[in-house]
This record gives sequence, structure tokens and C-alpha cells, in this order.
Amino acid sequence: MSNPNWTVYLSGEIHTDWRERIINGAEAADLPFSWLMPVTKHADSDDCGAVILGEEQQPFWRDHKGAKINAIRTRTFIEKSDVVVVRFGDKYKQWNAAFDAGYAAALGKSIITLHEPDLTHALKEVDGAALATAQTPEQVVDILSYVVTGQLK
Amino acid sequence: MSNPNWTVYLSGEIHTDWRERIINGAEAADLPFSWLMPVTKHADSDDCGAVILGEEQQPFWRDHKGAKINAIRTRTFIEKSDVVVVRFGDKYKQWNAAFDAGYAAALGKSIITLHEPDLTHALKEVDGAALATAQTPEQVVDILSYVVTGQLK
Amino acid sequence: MSNPNWTVYLSGEIHTDWRERIINGAEAADLPFSWLMPVTKHADSDDCGAVILGEEQQPFWRDHKGAKINAIRTRTFIEKSDVVVVRFGDKYKQWNAAFDAGYAAALGKSIITLHEPDLTHALKEVDGAALATAQTPEQVVDILSYVVTGQLK
Amino acid sequence: MSNPNWTVYLSGEIHTDWRERIINGAEAADLPFSWLMPVTKHADSDDCGAVILGEEQQPFWRDHKGAKINAIRTRTFIEKSDVVVVRFGDKYKQWNAAFDAGYAAALGKSIITLHEPDLTHALKEVDGAALATAQTPEQVVDILSYVVTGQLK
Amino acid sequence: MSNPNWTVYLSGEIHTDWRERIINGAEAADLPFSWLMPVTKHADSDDCGAVILGEEQQPFWRDHKGAKINAIRTRTFIEKSDVVVVRFGDKYKQWNAAFDAGYAAALGKSIITLHEPDLTHALKEVDGAALATAQTPEQVVDILSYVVTGQLK
Amino acid sequence: MSNPNWTVYLSGEIHTDWRERIINGAEAADLPFSWLMPVTKHADSDDCGAVILGEEQQPFWRDHKGAKINAIRTRTFIEKSDVVVVRFGDKYKQWNAAFDAGYAAALGKSIITLHEPDLTHALKEVDGAALATAQTPEQVVDILSYVVTGQLK
Amino acid sequence: MSNPNWTVYLSGEIHTDWRERIINGAEAADLPFSWLMPVTKHADSDDCGAVILGEEQQPFWRDHKGAKINAIRTRTFIEKSDVVVVRFGDKYKQWNAAFDAGYAAALGKSIITLHEPDLTHALKEVDGAALATAQTPEQVVDILSYVVTGQLK
Amino acid sequence: MSNPNWTVYLSGEIHTDWRERIINGAEAADLPFSWLMPVTKHADSDDCGAVILGEEQQPFWRDHKGAKINAIRTRTFIEKSDVVVVRFGDKYKQWNAAFDAGYAAALGKSIITLHEPDLTHALKEVDGAALATAQTPEQVVDILSYVVTGQLK
Repeated sequence: MSNPNWTVYLSGEIHTDWRERIINGAEAADLPFSWLMPVTKHADSDDCGAVILGEEQQPFWRDHKGAKINAIRTRTFIEKSDVVVVRFGDKYKQWNAAFDAGYAAALGKSIITLHEPDLTHALKEVDGAALATAQTPEQVVDILSYVVTGQLK
Repeated sequence: MSNPNWTVYLSGEIHTDWRERIINGAEAADLPFSWLMPVTKHADSDDCGAVILGEEQQPFWRDHKGAKINAIRTRTFIEKSDVVVVRFGDKYKQWNAAFDAGYAAALGKSIITLHEPDLTHALKEVDGAALATAQTPEQVVDILSYVVTGQLK
Repeated sequence: MSNPNWTVYLSGEIHTDWRERIINGAEAADLPFSWLMPVTKHADSDDCGAVILGEEQQPFWRDHKGAKINAIRTRTFIEKSDVVVVRFGDKYKQWNAAFDAGYAAALGKSIITLHEPDLTHALKEVDGAALATAQTPEQVVDILSYVVTGQLK
Repeated sequence: MSNPNWTVYLSGEIHTDWRERIINGAEAADLPFSWLMPVTKHADSDDCGAVILGEEQQPFWRDHKGAKINAIRTRTFIEKSDVVVVRFGDKYKQWNAAFDAGYAAALGKSIITLHEPDLTHALKEVDGAALATAQTPEQVVDILSYVVTGQLK
Repeated sequence: MSNPNWTVYLSGEIHTDWRERIINGAEAADLPFSWLMPVTKHADSDDCGAVILGEEQQPFWRDHKGAKINAIRTRTFIEKSDVVVVRFGDKYKQWNAAFDAGYAAALGKSIITLHEPDLTHALKEVDGAALATAQTPEQVVDILSYVVTGQLK
Repeated sequence: MSNPNWTVYLSGEIHTDWRERIINGAEAADLPFSWLMPVTKHADSDDCGAVILGEEQQPFWRDHKGAKINAIRTRTFIEKSDVVVVRFGDKYKQWNAAFDAGYAAALGKSIITLHEPDLTHALKEVDGAALATAQTPEQVVDILSYVVTGQLK
Repeated sequence: MSNPNWTVYLSGEIHTDWRERIINGAEAADLPFSWLMPVTKHADSDDCGAVILGEEQQPFWRDHKGAKINAIRTRTFIEKSDVVVVRFGDKYKQWNAAFDAGYAAALGKSIITLHEPDLTHALKEVDGAALATAQTPEQVVDILSYVVTGQLK
Repeated sequence: MSNPNWTVYLSGEIHTDWRERIINGAEAADLPFSWLMPVTKHADSDDCGAVILGEEQQPFWRDHKGAKINAIRTRTFIEKSDVVVVRFGDKYKQWNAAFDAGYAAALGKSIITLHEPDLTHALKEVDGAALATAQTPEQVVDILSYVVTGQLK
């Protein structure tokens, strides 16, 4: 039995430590994952277009330049992934997370959603496209551990 | 010059008359469009799984059954479309609209977003994947009219 | 709102009248479906290779010739379909039905499974790839009716 | 002449030692294969959803949660494979094995089926999509050895 | 049960009346086929490049110009087809017929080969990619009739 | 023999009457073509973004808005086409014509280039991806006539 | 500038030393190629099905079993390749070489044909799909050397 | 967080040192890029067909042979890339650069264009397909650095 390397993209909410909890949990178990993620520094993600390519007067184009540079990273990484974990928190619109989920779904990637039960109704279409819906990062670690090792702990 | 039929999917917000305004505007100009859309009766969209396949005790599975039946329609229609218009309003999470946009983007569909300027920053990733961002249904009609007739009015 | 024609492939068990019940139910409601299906005459399906291309001494090759001719029909029709309904009965192995479901899943078709509850555990992987699991042909009609008309009856 | 690594997915029956016989046979010949397979511990495969994400009252949803988590592994591995070996035994429905075969066929993977001659008629559609049908694991080793080394022993 | 139109490409040998026998046979049975084929006038097929775009001094480029113009037709038609029938006769190299078969195979088209038994060994790779191997045009008609009507005559 | 409708996209230079000459030539011969083309009114093509969605202060964004709206038409039409004719004249950069040719090549469309011999060296990569290179619109008509009718005039 | 590894499939004639001349020529220049090829031992290629899976009474099925096992190797290798070199000699039908060329063409692989000038007319369709036509193995080495190093010797 | 290797293709103008400035800039920052590019020695790029495969009398075929050999390199490299940078200078037609951009766009690659502002209007369609438009090689380095490290400097 071979253990091929799995690539996991961690999409969505950037204000809590859920990514660290998943990565640390998986690394504690010595699992063969490569972790990819969007730019998680909020300010850099907002400013990258204006800082690198020049400031803009119109907010729309300022955002546009930044969003497209971020897309170079985001789309490349989603396409390189086997599994996409999408985290929704209780703040902000997080439309980019749902957009990533749709993008991953159309590419046939395995999707795991991660959110509190009170978001169930609002996320029913996204959960409907996922192969698992978890409530804690530890459950995501358990799913990833199980699919890669082939056994429950 | 031939005028092939265009298929347009109208995704997103279901509480205002933006779909009617687009369809009526295009039909007034006698343009060759087929219009597709999700189920726009909110209650039916929520209840379809439970009503057809049986009630569920757990809210998660009630939503899940409905969301997947809706997905039969949604995905089939997005795949049949040339253009996907995605409307975001000021209420609700509308994650399904962003999910549709991501799904359409990965399939290489032409996307037009439709929303007020105050949503610009929150929608920058979705707008970044779109070929046009309109603020009114009439602008969407003008875009569709232009791309199909090949001239400005 | 346009009503595009939907193409539905009816795969699986051929010893009960489930296909007729679905087709009749949908036609009673005047729904825009094209119905495709495998060869449902069991003897023809078994004998086609030997009858058309010559008898075989080895059972394996007799079956092989027939199975491949049937595949011309089956694969062409699954690829032309928007929705694939897969019916499992209580008799026979029906591996071809599960094969069709896997084939349809990899092509991204919307799958509806149709079977009694006592097959739930044995069919969990197939149901897991489906967008709906029905127990009666009438439920399938209701799902198809809903996704095409966009409203519950 | 280069010897690229081949990836082989071993799908199907989990109650006999056919996987070990293939892997041991190939490794004895020092052949460059990576071996992938589904979760082969029957209980873990059944329970994974309920154990990781929480118990369910309805058997359908208990199976559903588990089947979808298993699909993360199964589909990822089939997509990574060059060759898919599908084993059918004389017990159980094994619809998931036939589903895997259909899934692999639609992706254009090379399929080798492995079963006793008495299953020939029931498996004719699956065998019809395969590039070889073997009766023993040793024949599978011989096929894999031949295609990778380019010569008969 | 719907009877969708099938598109059949008739590739290969152009010196006997096998195409007419297939088309006449199918039309006598009133079957819903569209028939596509390469340019079957040998001289036109050889000369088209030089006649339309200007004569060439080098035979290689004369052939090249013609072959590529013919490819506009050939590839467009193979891609539009559901079934590709490839006929090999006893004369000439007919490498373009084998090329068409390979092209069709990679696109996942259903292939039917048509040739005398004495070509079996030389054509084993092409027959291996086909779903049926016939010896007479009438057998091809019977196969096409069976897959479209779903019953043996 | 069936005569399926062919769809031809006419890309490139918009200042001479080459499109009319091709269309008129083909229609005189009663050939089954659908003709698609970009917006050929230069001013509309430049202004569409600003006129429909609002004027821009920065020339880059003014052009950007227009170019993306034009892309809705251009990409949709190239994807619907069987053959893409790309015309290069002696004026302007015409990078959009070369871009269309590259886009069509990656999609596997049949490409016919149309230009004077003095552009041969500069266009060698584009001609290298084409299935024919013509110098006059009449030659394009002759090619299209030949591939659709299957015979030289 | 990076020098990625290139994978080259050497298809076709197996009775002269053209493969060795290409491989030796490229290795003398220390070029980063992986070389793939079909089974080049004629007897093994013919007998593999019968030897591994059991003798057949009918020549058709004996060939069929062998051809399909060989296809496991052939298709896997062509799909892994960047460039496919196809060699035609003056003996035998070599339909499998033309089939490989068609298969590679439909997958968008870069094709180099290798044959004497007296086969030009018979191979015009295959050459028309190739990016280069060479007459000697040394020319193939020069092409491969040039495309990988980016300079003429 | 993993840092997967990125592959970047540097297409277009070959008469200034923009490639070196990008590569040196990225290597100074120790970024994990593989750099691919067309043949940048102008004479070799023009002569390769004639030198390797024999001189031609007609300029068209001389260019044609060379262009197709260059295409082996160009297309293989664009397909292996994650990001395609396309540089337009103020001289020459550079249709091959625009062709590469179109080819990359249809494959869904992330495109960065690099040119002076005075080319903005002529390049609006190419820029419209790009995810970023830079004016200096240093800006390209900054974009690549940002998308790979996930933070602004």
C-alpha cells in the first residue's frame, strides 16, 4: 500500500486559528499533506494591486486589481489540490469562500465544509456539494487522517 | 451574419423583480435569448426535499435533501448557459449565488455581476471573475443587447 | 423563463414497469422530457452479438460481443443525458446498473437512484453519488417535475 | 527506455487476500508500482461518518455520511491511477466495485477485472469495458509485469 | 421512449460501395441517422490544396496542403459523430483510416470496424479499440438498427 | 450523406469588405453556414464599456471595461464555431486577431488564415497553427465550399 | 531557464534500430528525456493474451486479448508523453502506428513522423497532423535537441 | 503551509533583457520558480526547420517548417505552466506573443501582460484576458513574489 502525498487547500475565514489547528493536528499524526491557502494577511490581500501596480482613484478598480492578483494564487492552488476545505465563520459576507467552493465543485474536487450548525440553512447549497460537513477543525483532521491512512484511530 | 440563440442563467437574489426587468427589457428589443433560472419560490426551494421524499427530523438533512434536488436544476442550467448573470442584494448571506458564480467561472462561462456599489469590496473576488459588473438590470439588458446585436443602441 | 428540453436516461432493472410509470407520470403532466434507456428486452440484450455477428463457442466471448454492442447504445445515451435515473431491484446482481451510475457520476451527470429501503446499506456508495434517492417511480416523477417547472405541485 | 512509476488502484472485494497476492507478486519481481486501494477494514468503512461527525438516527443518513467520506479517498485515488483492477467475489452485492469500474471507465482508465468464470454473464458489461479479465491474482501480476517491463517472463 | 438522431461517420476505403450499402440499408428501415464521411472523390481529395490555394513544386507540400484542408472536414465530422465506422479494404495503405480510428478512440467515440477476416491480425489494435467488428455492411446496418431501435429484427 | 450546418467565425481586420465577400460567395453557392463575427463597428467596440456602464477617467480601465464586454461575444462565438477564419491586414497591430487565433487553436478549432504574402514571415506561428492559409476571400469560399460539399467545383 | 524533463513515446516499426539511434543520439548529448515505447518484441506482443490469460481457439479472440493487454501499455504511455514520434517502414500494414498517431493527435500531443520520402503520399494525412516530418533518426534527435535546449547545434 | 514549485512561461519580445530581470529578481528572493520560454535566439528560431530538415525554395514553407518545430517547444511549455507572462515591445508585429496569450487563456492559465502604457489601447483584448498588467519586469517579480509567498514585501 502506497501513501501518496495529498494536497489540501484551506479556503475561507481568516480571523481565527482554524488553519493552524488543522495543520498542527495532521502534522502531529505525521500525515503526508501539502497545505495550500489564500493570502491570509487581510491588509496585504486588499492592498496588493495598488501597492505593486500603482494606487487607484476608484475603489472598484483598486479592489479589482487586487482581486485578480489574488486569483493567480487562489485558482492555481485550488487546481493543484485534491481536497478543498472551506471554512465559514459568523462574520463578514465571505462570498469569496463560497465562490471557491463553487469553483472547486465544478472542477470535481472533494470538498469539506467547516462551520457552526447555525449556518446550516444558509449554507445548504454549499454543504450539498460537499463530501463532508464538519463543525470543528479536529473533525477535519480526523476525516483527512482517515482518508489517507485508511483506518479510524 | 447569423444570430444564434443565447442562453442566459439568472442566478441569485429572489426578492426583487430584477429578473423580470431583464427579461422584459430584452424581449421588448426582440432579442434571441433563452432564460434559465433557479427555483425562485423561496418556500418550494426550501421544502422540496421533505415534501417529495419525506420529512426529516434533523434540520441538516432536511436542507441537504432539498439543496441536492435544487442542484439538479441549477447545475444542469448553468452548464447549458452561455452567460451567467449573478445578482447580489443587501440581505441574506446569498452564498449560493457566490457558489454559482464560482461554478460558472470554473466552467469558463461569461459572468455578469449585478449589485449596488456598496457591495464592491465584499464582492471583489466575484467581480474579478466577471466580464462585466452592472448596477442596474437595465445595464445588463444593454450588455446583452450589445453582445448579441453587435452594436450600441 | 424558457423551458429547455431535458434528456433523462433510465438505467437498471428491466423486470418491472418502473420506466412506464415514470414516463406516463411525466407525460400526464406534459413535461418536456426525452427518455432514453438501454435495450430492455432481456433476450435481445443477451443475444445481439451472436445473432448479428455470428455465434460463439465460448460463453465469455458470446457475452463480450453482446455487451460491447449494447455499450454503443448505453454510453451514447448516458452522454446525451442531463439526468440519469438508476433503478435497483431485489433480484440479480445488476452490476451494469451500478456501472452506469459510476460512469454517469464521472461525467458529472445528475443521478437519481430508485430502490427499496432494504437496499440502502448495499447501495450507500451509489446513493452517496446521487442527488436524490427515491423509493417509488412517482417520487422520481415529482422530482423531475419540480426541477423542470421550478415549483412544487 | 525509461520505467515510469505506475499507479494501480485495487477496487472491490475485501474478504480474501487477493490484494496481498498481487502486491507481493509484483514486489517479488521488483516492479515500479504504487498501490492504492479503498478502506479495506469493513467496520471502519461503515462507521467512519458516524464516528467522526456524530451518530445518526436514520440508517440512510448514517450510511450516507460514511459513504461520502469514503468517496474522498476512492475518487481521489481512482483519478490518480493508471490502471484500476476490480475484483468481484461470490458474496455480497458489491455494487461499489461496479460503480468504481464505471467511474474509471468514464475517466478512460485501463481496467482489469478479476473474477471466477461463473460470474461471466452477470459481469459482461463490466468485462466489456475492461482491457483484460483475469481469474487469478497471479494473472493480474503477469499482466502488470508484462505491460511495465515490455516482455513476457 | 425517444429516438434521438444519431450521427455516424463512415471512414476509410473509398473504392467499393460499402457506404451506399450501409446508408441504403438503414434508410430502408427508416432509421434516424445523419451520415457523415470524408471526401470520397479520390482526385479531389488529392488535388484540393493545389487547385484552391495554388500548385506546389514539392510533392510533400502539395500533399500537405491538401491533407490539411481535408482535415477541416474530417476532424469536424468525427467530433460531431456518435459512432465511427472504419472500413479497411485489401488495397492501399489506408493509414488515414487507422489514423481516424485512433482519433475517434481518443475522443471516446463508439467505433465499429468493417473488414475481411484475413486482415484480423494486422488490425488487431484497431479492432481492440472498437465496440464491434463486422465483415459486411449489412452487419453494420444490423448493429446500427439494433442500437437505435433497441431490438433485434 | 447529410449536410450538417457549419458555424464559421470571421475574426480580425474590420476595415475592408472581406467578410461580405466570403459570406456573399458562400451564399451564392447556397452553402449551409452560420456566420459569426466580433463587433465590427470600431467605435462601438471601443466605447461599449463606457457607454453602458459609465465613463472612466483612466484610459486603461475605459479600454478594460470595453474589452471584457466584447469578450462575452467573442469567446462565446469562437466556442460555438467549427471553423475560425482569421484575417490580417497591413495596418494596425491586430493583436486581438492573433489572440483569437491562439484561443481557437487551444480549443482545437479548424483555423484558416487570410493575408497577403508579405505578412508570411511575421505570421509564421499563426499560419503554423492553421489548416489553410489563403490570400483572397474567394479562396476561403472555395475551401469552405469544398469541405462542406465534399467536391471541387 | 529551467530544463524540465520531456517524455517521448517512440511508436511504430519494430524491425530496425531507429529507436536505439534516437535514444543513443539524445543521450550522447545528455538531454533530459524519458523514453517510452510499445512492446517491441514482436512475438511477445502477439502472444501476451494467450500466454497470460489462456490460449484461444479463434484467431480473432487470440489477437483481441493480446491487443487489449498491449493497449494498457500503449495508451498509458501516450498519455504520459509530451512528444510522440511515429515511424513508418516499408513493410507491413503498420495500422497500429497510424492509430497511435490519431490517438496522440486527438490528445493534442506534439507528433513527429519518421519515414522515407516514397511514403509521403500514403502518409499525407498523418504528416498533416504532425509538427515535423523527418527522414532519419538523426533528424529526430536534432529536433528534440533543439526544442529542449532552445538552440541549434 | 507548503510552497509548491510554480512554473512560469515567459512569452514574447526577445530583444531586451526583461526575462533576465524577472529571473534574477525572483532568484535574488529565493523563490521556487521554474522558468520556461520560447527559443530566444532569433536566427535559430527562424532557421531551425531549414537547418534540421532541409532548405526550402518557398519562403512560406521555410517559415512553416520552422514555426511548427518551435511549436513543439512553445505549446509543451505553455501547457506545463501555471503562469504565462507575455511581453510586448514597441517593435515588430509580435503576433506570436498575442497568439500565445490566446492559447494560454483558452487553457485557463493565469496571464500577466507586460508593456508600456502607450500600447494599452492596442492590447486591450489581451489585457482584458490577463489577471495583471505590469509596466516593468520588477512589477512582475513583485506579483510573482506575492502570489507565491502570500505576503507583500
